[in-house]
Parts: sequence; structure tokens; C-alpha cells
Amino acid sequence: MASVNRLLIINRGEIAVRIIRAAKELGITTVAAYSDADEQSLAVRLADESVNIGAAHARKSYLNHDAVLAAAQDRKVDAIHPGYGFLSENAEFARSVAEAGLIWVGPDAETIARMGHKAEAIQTARAAGVPVVPGSQGLIATVEDGVAAAETIGFPVLIKAAAGGGGRGIRIATDESELAVGIASAQQEAEAAFGDGGVYLERFIPHARHIEVQVLGDGADAVHFYERDCSLQRRRQKIWEEAPAAILDAETRDHLCESAVALARSVGYCGAGTVEYLFDPQTGEYFFIEMNTRIQVEHPITEEICGVDLIQAMIRVAQGEPLPYRQEDIRQRGHAIEVRINAEDPDRDFMPGPGTIADLHWPAGPGVRIDSMAYAGYQIPPYYDSMIGKLIIWAEDRDRALARLDRALSELELTGLKTTLPFFERLLTQDDVRNNALHTTWIEQLLEARTS
Amino acid sequence: MASVNRLLIINRGEIAVRIIRAAKELGITTVAAYSDADEQSLAVRLADESVNIGAAHARKSYLNHDAVLAAAQDRKVDAIHPGYGFLSENAEFARSVAEAGLIWVGPDAETIARMGHKAEAIQTARAAGVPVVPGSQGLIATVEDGVAAAETIGFPVLIKAAAGGGGRGIRIATDESELAVGIASAQQEAEAAFGDGGVYLERFIPHARHIEVQVLGDGADAVHFYERDCSLQRRRQKIWEEAPAAILDAETRDHLCESAVALARSVGYCGAGTVEYLFDPQTGEYFFIEMNTRIQVEHPITEEICGVDLIQAMIRVAQGEPLPYRQEDIRQRGHAIEVRINAEDPDRDFMPGPGTIADLHWPAGPGVRIDSMAYAGYQIPPYYDSMIGKLIIWAEDRDRALARLDRALSELELTGLKTTLPFFERLLTQDDVRNNALHTTWIEQLLEARTS
Repeated sequence: MASVNRLLIINRGEIAVRIIRAAKELGITTVAAYSDADEQSLAVRLADESVNIGAAHARKSYLNHDAVLAAAQDRKVDAIHPGYGFLSENAEFARSVAEAGLIWVGPDAETIARMGHKAEAIQTARAAGVPVVPGSQGLIATVEDGVAAAETIGFPVLIKAAAGGGGRGIRIATDESELAVGIASAQQEAEAAFGDGGVYLERFIPHARHIEVQVLGDGADAVHFYERDCSLQRRRQKIWEEAPAAILDAETRDHLCESAVALARSVGYCGAGTVEYLFDPQTGEYFFIEMNTRIQVEHPITEEICGVDLIQAMIRVAQGEPLPYRQEDIRQRGHAIEVRINAEDPDRDFMPGPGTIADLHWPAGPGVRIDSMAYAGYQIPPYYDSMIGKLIIWAEDRDRALARLDRALSELELTGLKTTLPFFERLLTQDDVRNNALHTTWIEQLLEARTS
Repeated sequence: MASVNRLLIINRGEIAVRIIRAAKELGITTVAAYSDADEQSLAVRLADESVNIGAAHARKSYLNHDAVLAAAQDRKVDAIHPGYGFLSENAEFARSVAEAGLIWVGPDAETIARMGHKAEAIQTARAAGVPVVPGSQGLIATVEDGVAAAETIGFPVLIKAAAGGGGRGIRIATDESELAVGIASAQQEAEAAFGDGGVYLERFIPHARHIEVQVLGDGADAVHFYERDCSLQRRRQKIWEEAPAAILDAETRDHLCESAVALARSVGYCGAGTVEYLFDPQTGEYFFIEMNTRIQVEHPITEEICGVDLIQAMIRVAQGEPLPYRQEDIRQRGHAIEVRINAEDPDRDFMPGPGTIADLHWPAGPGVRIDSMAYAGYQIPPYYDSMIGKLIIWAEDRDRALARLDRALSELELTGLKTTLPFFERLLTQDDVRNNALHTTWIEQLLEARTS
């Protein structure tokens, strides 16, 4: 069994700090790779060693294959942890790491590639018996084709451009007449926009929730650590996550989690991963969307309710250990909420505003966990995403977690720049948040209601 | 059922902060009572309201019955939480609070008085079937009496002065001849020192461990939250506590915990309390020492392993709610360690040294909890005890908790004054700590080994 003794962390921000903490506790020497802009980062301060990998722009540092591999060789590390974002789901780079004789803390390049390809991922899920969003099998040539498909799928349906992306050219049809008009105009628009008029249909789920299952595999077997509800999103970016998903009944939860494990097993998954679903609270159905082949930002809420260390578990399976947990020993306890503290101004459409943190006083006491790279005097570089930390709350149940979050926010002092913190205080006053009546576009509705 | 809406906290330091946090989460308005020396305290900053109760010396503020009761009436509170120390185990004061028509967050005056009287407490424990330290039934008049008693008790025995206290005049006898000499000289010394030559015998337990059980009663029933091992003491002061007590096997743990509940039930206990035992690792026997009728400094490690909030539970039973937990729902998970950060210099015989905290950077991330009143710029008043906070670690098992404690200590920056923090780093290097081969005088042995 290969053993990780020296670990290169090729990421920044709070996840670099998180990985350093986990590795240190395992007795591993940590080497933080950093860009010119991150020389003063907390990760560099906390790591045993650090190594500059290039200029501020990520393309020249955190995304630069050659620079990262050169740093790994220079520092004689035996393993690389990519964190999330950057190179974490880059199959080509994962292959280079393996070819260099180093341990990649994540699934192998083939698995990353397979799950990174949307159509192939859906095909893999379907083959593993995981429900996928009902849709037309392939493109819709005529309105008649569309009507026939919609009868199977069930209204309302989405009309999507095959060549589209990022939500462009999507239409909703609630009946046959809307479908006829929609297909024609979607085809025209797709032809004009992408030079490809192909469209297909998919079930539209109003008020869908985003529910995802944390899995861990060792190549031979896989387990799950239950689910997270990440329905509170702003423009498809999660900003508030909870575990467990209080909306689920026990039976649905079991099915959802078991189907995620079935998918992981079917590909011989090795590492931590997340299987993401849309959940329809009206019907109780759930549908596979995609699998993320890396650790997620919101992994701490799973750690809090399950009492596990997912980063350490990733490292252990990466070095060839069998799964460190048996499914029957993994139990949920209580309720956890994570809110993302972003350097953004909620009063100005969440405009990112890097700056220098003046005063910083974190909340503390029971059930409060801080995963952050922030410190008083820290200058946030403008080159990367705006997240400066996560406030993670655990309590005995959801109501108490909300009360504790409220208490913790009242203690938190962070001056010098605008953050999303006041927005979370506002969310706590909303009945829908208290009553867990949320969905993936709920925040957009809230924000529109204010401006209209 | 009386309801607590406004709570006066008549304590200071980290426990005042802890109580404010718990009460806030319950939606209770908090009023911090503070002395002249504590005007700048974190408790005053975090409480909804604050009220000055007198001069710095505790006798004029935190111990001043009239001042505290006047503040309670002035601020129209409906309940008082005493924390630990100060008035928390003062039966007379608890009675005054009840007579003033206010809720006392703790057991009633009669229970405090009964358990505060050592002989009566032991008698109560014995009546409830709880093992007490074997000893002579009453005083030893002659050497022959002593020999007869020692045969029943078993050597080695302690010879103790009935009028003594604080360890004065105690002798150890390992056989009959030492006993004969010891009784005679102990009687003479006691006569000279206290004007009362009465002595009695008690079993001496070498390498005893201090193990205590957390209980909670509602007057009608009681539950336990398992045990804590507080064997790492310096001059009988706990400085490092763990939960669970890894030395216990499952059967002994059950007996120990059930006997604590039996004692609480036998007195109709209402509130949080701690039943303290000496545990003999040689024989597996345990013996009742005393019961503390208040919350303890080390309560957070129990909260961490059981996933409960003891301060909130205290408030709930005080306002007449039934026990918020059923015994079968209370389960331990993982391992927790608390170390007490005292403003003392371990290199100068732990001499207290108040001062001003310059820089302060707490550790964070998974399994790290801080209960403290410290902040950068905080001036520690010289009038009270030296504790400025507690670092509480949770991890999946004891080895991982030690590794995490090590990691957290490496992150912790606290400058401006000497603290016990370096001593904990030293403890982590000791084989006996790693192997859990500890007892209540182990630290004295360690410190003597260094100086000799």
C-alpha cells in the first residue's frame, strides 16, 4: 500500500486550509502551492512548507499543469490534493499525475472523464438503475414527435437546444399548443444562435429541490453519508446548504442514497464524490442530474451530522486503504446548516468587492464551526472566486440550527468590506426558510419581489 | 409552567458567555450582571442587557446576595443562572431567589445543602446503593480498633483527621506496623493542630482516576449523559478532561452511570449535576466522592459526545419542563478532550499572571470548539480565577482527538501573557498521555521528575 507522507495542496482559500488541517492530523507533511497573489494566505501560514507556482491569474498558477507538476517534483511530494474547482475535475491532469508516479487524491482520470461528460454520465446512471429526468429519447424533428414524447414525459416540459448551454434557448410548455409554438421558435432560435436547430424535451419540475448524496468509494465498494439539501441557490450558485434534507421521508431518503451508492459501485468509484438529484416535492420523485468527482464546498455539513472526516477519508482511500467506514456505522445526528460568506454586496446585486478585512471576530461556542482563510488584515485578491469562508452550524434539530445560526451571525463581526452575511440574517426572517418551503429559484423570487 | 423570558446571569468569564449563547438560542432576553472589573467583558458585549452589581472583589459583586437580588428586581428578570463557583452552590442564596419569586436555574436549596454537606452526601449515596470509599465506621480510638477496621477496609489505608481538611494531617499505612505508628502520630498532630485528636481510616487507592457522571433531573426522573475522565489534575485542579473515560469497560460504565442516576432519583433531583467517583483501575471498583449541584467547567465534552445542550436543558427543567431527553436516546459518539487555558506560567510553577491579550487567533475547522471570553485587547482582571477559556476537541476516537488537539494548538496564537498552552503541547509528547496511563497525581509526578 502506497503511503502519503508529503502532500501537495494545489488549491487556495478555505479548502486549502481545510486540507492542511486534515493532513496534519494524519501526520502528513503539507506543502501549500500558492500563486503570487496568495503569498500572505492562511494556507501558506499553516502549511509545513509552501511553494510558489506562478502568477496571480489561475491559468498561470492553479490551472497550470506544468507548474503544478514541477512543484510536486521539486518538493518531492508523493500525493496531490486538488480540492474543488481548478484542476479537481480535469481528467487529463489527473492522468499526468498518475503517470508521474504520484497519488491523485480523487477518482482516476477515466472516471472523471466519464462523469464529466453529461450524456455519458446520464447513460451510466440509467444503466445503474438511477432515475434520470424523463425526456425525449433524442431530438424532436416535428411538432407531432414532440406531442408524442410529451405525452410520455408529462407536462410541463422544457424545450432545450441540443447545442445550447447555460440555460440559453430554454422554453417551458404547459400544454400541446404551447409545445407547438415553442418547438418551432426554439428550433429557429437554436439554428440562429448555434447553427444547429436540434431540440429535445425534458420534464419540467416546478419548485424542484436540489438534493445531493455524499458517497465514498475505495474502488471495490462504496458507502454513502446521506444527503444534503442545497436548494437555496442564487443564479445556480449554492449559498446555503443543509443536512439532512428535512423534506424527505425515510423511505425516499433510503432509495435516494442507495441509488447513489449503486452508481458509485457501477463505476468502481474510488474517492469522495457527490451524486446530485432534482427532487420533486409534489410527486416525491427524484432524478439524477450529475455526479461531481471531487469534494464539495458544502462537505462540512455532512461531516457534522455523520461525525466523520471526509478529507481524511479521501486521503486514506487514495493511498489504497479499504473504506474506513461501514455503511451500518454511518448514522446521522441532528441538523447542520452551512452559509457561504462571500465578499459580495447583497444590496448591489451581489457584486463582488474584494478588499481588506479590518476587524474579524468569529462566533464560537457549541455547534459553531468556521472553515475560512480569513484573518484580520487579510487582503482578498481580486483574481479568484469571492468566497472567504463558511459558517457551519450544528444543532439537535432544524429549528435549533436556525436559532443557533441567528445567534452566531449576531456575534460575527467582519468589517472592511461587504459580505453576504446580512443576506443570511434576512433569510432567517423569511417564513419560507423557517418552514423549509424552498426551491432552487426561491431566492430569485425573493429578490424580484423586493425590487418590483 | 413558569416560563423564562428574562434571565440574569450572575457570573463572569467564559461561563457567562456560554449561558448567554444558550439562552439567546432559546429566545430568552439575557441580562449580564457584572462587576466594575468586568465592564469590558465579552459577556457584557454579547448580552442583550447588562447590570453593574458592584466592585471588583467578588465579595462585593458576584458573591453579594443583596446586590444580585436588587439587580434581578431592578431588571425585572424571571430567572437567575449562577454558572459555576460564586453563588452556584450556596443554599441560602438559592432559597432567597425562590422566596423572591424567581426561578433558580439549579436544584432547590435543600438539595444543594444536603449534597454540600460531605457526611450527609455520603450517607445519601450509600442509601441509594452507590458504593462509597470503604472506611472505618466513625473514629478510631485505639490501635486495636484501627487494625480491626483496616482488615475490613484492606491495606493500604489513609489515616485522616476528622477535624482536618485540605489534605492536612493525612498519613498512608501499608501494613499493621505503619498503621500503629501512624494512628498515634496522626492523633497527636490532629490534637495539636485542630484541638481534636479524632482520626478515621479510609481505603487508599494508588493511581486512582477521577471519573464523574453528568446527570440531569426534572424532579420526577433523572437521566445520565455518560461520564468524563478528569484524572489530569494539578494540585486537585482539573486542567484536561476527556469523555468518554476510555479506561472503563462497557459493564463498569453502565454501573457507574446507573448508580449516578439512582442517587439523583433518590433525592428528586431537578437540574444538572455531577456525581464524582474515584475509580481504581487495579480492581475496577469505583467509589462516590461527592455530588456537584451545578454545571461544571468541563460540561462541553459531554455536549460534544452526546450531541446535547446542557445549559439549555438546565433552563428547560428549571422552568418546569419534563426531561428533554429520554435515556435511550442519549448516545455517545467519538471522543472529546477539553484543555483549560489559564493565564498562568507553566515555567514558573503555574504562577497566575494577569495581563492584556495582544494578538489572538483561535484554531478552527472540524472538531474544534472554543468557549472563551478572550478577545484581542482584552485585559484580564486580577481579581478572579485565571481561566480565560477552554479549547474543546471532538474526533472519531481518542487517538484522533489527540492528533486534532495537537493540530489546533499549533494554530492557536495568543500573545501578551503567559498561558498553560505550552504545557498541553508538552503533555501531548508524553507516552502516558498517549497510552491513557494517567491518574490524579500524575502531573505532580511529571513536574517533580523535571525539577529533580
